[in-house]
Amino acid sequence: MSNYMAVVEYDGTCYSGFQIQLPDRRTIQGELEKGLSTVLRSLVKIGYSGRTDAGVHAVNQVINFRTEKDIDLYKFAWSVNSLIPEDIVIKSIKEVEESFSARRDAKFREYAYYVVNGSCQSVFLKKYSILITKKLDLNMMKKAAGIFVGTHNFRSFCGSTDDNSKNFVRKIFKFTISKSRDNLIVFSISANSFLYNMVRIIVGTILEVGSGERNLESVKRAVTYEDRILAGKTAPAKGLFLTRVVY
Amino acid sequence: MSNYMAVVEYDGTCYSGFQIQLPDRRTIQGELEKGLSTVLRSLVKIGYSGRTDAGVHAVNQVINFRTEKDIDLYKFAWSVNSLIPEDIVIKSIKEVEESFSARRDAKFREYAYYVVNGSCQSVFLKKYSILITKKLDLNMMKKAAGIFVGTHNFRSFCGSTDDNSKNFVRKIFKFTISKSRDNLIVFSISANSFLYNMVRIIVGTILEVGSGERNLESVKRAVTYEDRILAGKTAPAKGLFLTRVVY
Repeated sequence: MSNYMAVVEYDGTCYSGFQIQLPDRRTIQGELEKGLSTVLRSLVKIGYSGRTDAGVHAVNQVINFRTEKDIDLYKFAWSVNSLIPEDIVIKSIKEVEESFSARRDAKFREYAYYVVNGSCQSVFLKKYSILITKKLDLNMMKKAAGIFVGTHNFRSFCGSTDDNSKNFVRKIFKFTISKSRDNLIVFSISANSFLYNMVRIIVGTILEVGSGERNLESVKRAVTYEDRILAGKTAPAKGLFLTRVVY
Repeated sequence: MSNYMAVVEYDGTCYSGFQIQLPDRRTIQGELEKGLSTVLRSLVKIGYSGRTDAGVHAVNQVINFRTEKDIDLYKFAWSVNSLIPEDIVIKSIKEVEESFSARRDAKFREYAYYVVNGSCQSVFLKKYSILITKKLDLNMMKKAAGIFVGTHNFRSFCGSTDDNSKNFVRKIFKFTISKSRDNLIVFSISANSFLYNMVRIIVGTILEVGSGERNLESVKRAVTYEDRILAGKTAPAKGLFLTRVVY
């Protein structure tokens, strides 16, 4: 039995998220397992670094799967890519130790969130960013981001379906906000792992700071008092990308 | 009567080109004139720097139109953008001299063509680049590009529907080919103006040089002997962008 790790990219626009759900929902996992199973002529189940929500994109999602078949890696990736939908691609694949798990062995995950802060949005970014026309205060948003760095209980920043999780403590290693040409603001955040909707709620909260609807004290309160009601709106899925998983 | 110049961006994937044709074809011009006419409540005809073919994109197409109505520029662009399809956007608009013509006054046009040279294509680039898996010789392609720079008769590099044009002489000011991360090769070419399909036939010819199917002598012959049969294939529309028009 050999264990393979693959790096996968996808445009999440037309999917109900990564993880397989009801049979009538299109999911990234579903399409990948179908493609892999067809080429390997046996039922393949994949492991993955973490699920992404409906509409969220990934440039470097990591999966792993086991098979007894011998694989010519280059041809194999090519075959699977020609079977799966156009908006999913296996970028690379390699054999790894039998014990490797894409989820368990991940040291940290990195996400990016894209916000266009201007009067209009590039047609090439509409599916991959949100538009905010009101001028955002970049400095205040950077200060707000600083509040999240470190180890905290992120219960206030967790979507409802994860409410039964035992442990809401996560460690954010790095959180930067930068602005580039064309009024594009990029949030880049890495943590050991993320709760359901965590990045989107954190970004939504910081955007309220940037637009002057919320002050830094209120962000600190949301972190301290562990209640979803204290945090901001959940930012839309389409601006979010899983950018990196480090092992 | 006031004259306005607007910079327009579009994803050409779903359009039969820029220029209005048969009434049942979707065109960029058709959608823009419909949107402008609706907001201005009178029939608007636009001028433009040049038409782009079916499937070709633009980040900075320039148009102009005349109207007797007073315009609040910011609100006006916002109104038109909310009426026209998602894959077209007016990026900016300003009043210009009565005599300004987007076509006649353009000093030069710049196009970019995107080629992914690797084993697979990013899902985010599939609609905006072509994939060539065979390793391309970048140095040979740069040499081939050099042959085109300057003033030449480009009859060999002109699509058939323009065969009745009187004048095939054009001046290419600059032509660079560069390679970035992710195996992305970018052709960047500027000229006083371009013939029908000219960029795509030039790129197609140079790609044949890059893959070893054609030598530099054969490119020189194609430039010298003014016959379409001597040049290479027309590269697909989807890799091509109108990037800049300078006045």
